[in-house]
Amino acid sequence: MSQEKQITKQHLGSMESRYRARFINSLTGFKSANLVGTVDQQGNPNLAIVSSVVHIGSNPPLIGFINRPNSVERHTLENILATKSFTLNSIDEDIAALAHQTSARYPKNQSEFQAVGLTPYTDNDFIAPFVLESGLKIALTLKEHHIIKANDTELIIGEVEQVRVPSDAIQPDGYLDVESMDLVTISGLDSYHVTQRLYRLDYAKPDKALEPLSVSGEKTEWKVNQSTMD
Amino acid sequence: MSQEKQITKQHLGSMESRYRARFINSLTGFKSANLVGTVDQQGNPNLAIVSSVVHIGSNPPLIGFINRPNSVERHTLENILATKSFTLNSIDEDIAALAHQTSARYPKNQSEFQAVGLTPYTDNDFIAPFVLESGLKIALTLKEHHIIKANDTELIIGEVEQVRVPSDAIQPDGYLDVESMDLVTISGLDSYHVTQRLYRLDYAKPDKALEPLSVSGEKTEWKVNQSTMD
Repeated sequence: MSQEKQITKQHLGSMESRYRARFINSLTGFKSANLVGTVDQQGNPNLAIVSSVVHIGSNPPLIGFINRPNSVERHTLENILATKSFTLNSIDEDIAALAHQTSARYPKNQSEFQAVGLTPYTDNDFIAPFVLESGLKIALTLKEHHIIKANDTELIIGEVEQVRVPSDAIQPDGYLDVESMDLVTISGLDSYHVTQRLYRLDYAKPDKALEPLSVSGEKTEWKVNQSTMD
Repeated sequence: MSQEKQITKQHLGSMESRYRARFINSLTGFKSANLVGTVDQQGNPNLAIVSSVVHIGSNPPLIGFINRPNSVERHTLENILATKSFTLNSIDEDIAALAHQTSARYPKNQSEFQAVGLTPYTDNDFIAPFVLESGLKIALTLKEHHIIKANDTELIIGEVEQVRVPSDAIQPDGYLDVESMDLVTISGLDSYHVTQRLYRLDYAKPDKALEPLSVSGEKTEWKVNQSTMD
């Protein structure tokens, strides 16, 4: 490994602003890649890429994301507050470049769907549009909303109303094999990656060696190297 | 692609609880993998794996994570509230299984560092311990703290005080090549993956074709396929 560099708060403060944005956005490692679909009260659709989606809880099923201030995504926030509904749509290798293009500052009256070439899809049950090309589609209702005082960003939390997913991806124990769907992950502001599974690992317990699982959640023969464990 | 399965809120509610936890935890796609290092007021170290770290902002540099209620990570929360400090430490391929093992329910008086075989490392400037084996180490001071009413989880936000990273990973434009450090990403509750970069993409603008960037942030010759864009 190369030499470790130590960067202080003072160094961070003196960085050029785009350089700092790229650096700080890289610190959180690999991030989920999603498209947020909304409509305004006139029914005009909006689509924005986000890398800040985070699991909040399973029961009730809650998912959150961080919405940045003064950005194109502001339309997203306005629409969610007005309609209480939004969708999260997965980004796979085939649509990653189109998804990235939604981050351009299109005027409010222009649909990002049309601008980048993705297809809005709605059903009768839900007002916010899905992305037809996304393998994994989630419909959510606004549940809670926190303003982060330190920088005026907002945490939006939705409750899952509906999930659409290829049935093949659902494993017998409930795990969804998102790698089989070629979903991408984002690092920094602009780097897109596909993945290669190392292993699934069984629920950890004290004083018990870890057991690797197959993708379908069954015990396997091989052992994980835990040589430094006592 | 296989047939799309539609799962309603009612279906989710009727799922067996571990099945539902695996399913809902999979919906957010690929997640960042980090170890949170803390100490209590007696100086006893604690270490917990989290997959909920999220970028909050670059200026000031803020990073958050979701802390679950009634879990082993509760020690983490208590320690952060008591000492106002914590570290985030990256998980690479070599330590992924050890990191997973920190999720076992060790008693409060047992250090997860010692239990799983990772090395706490502190310097004079900062009270919370780093993980020596982690390539990317971040020291943070508690800045803000939100209780999510819907399920009693908490959003912890820290301001970055210090970053330690291999100097080779820092690219000329500020981007950190986390793939070169073999960092892993998590899907669901228990699946670990390494990555393969597709491309970096230039800042998107309306009416401008996307330009791919090299890992070091320079323009490249080849073009991204945006065939469905108008």
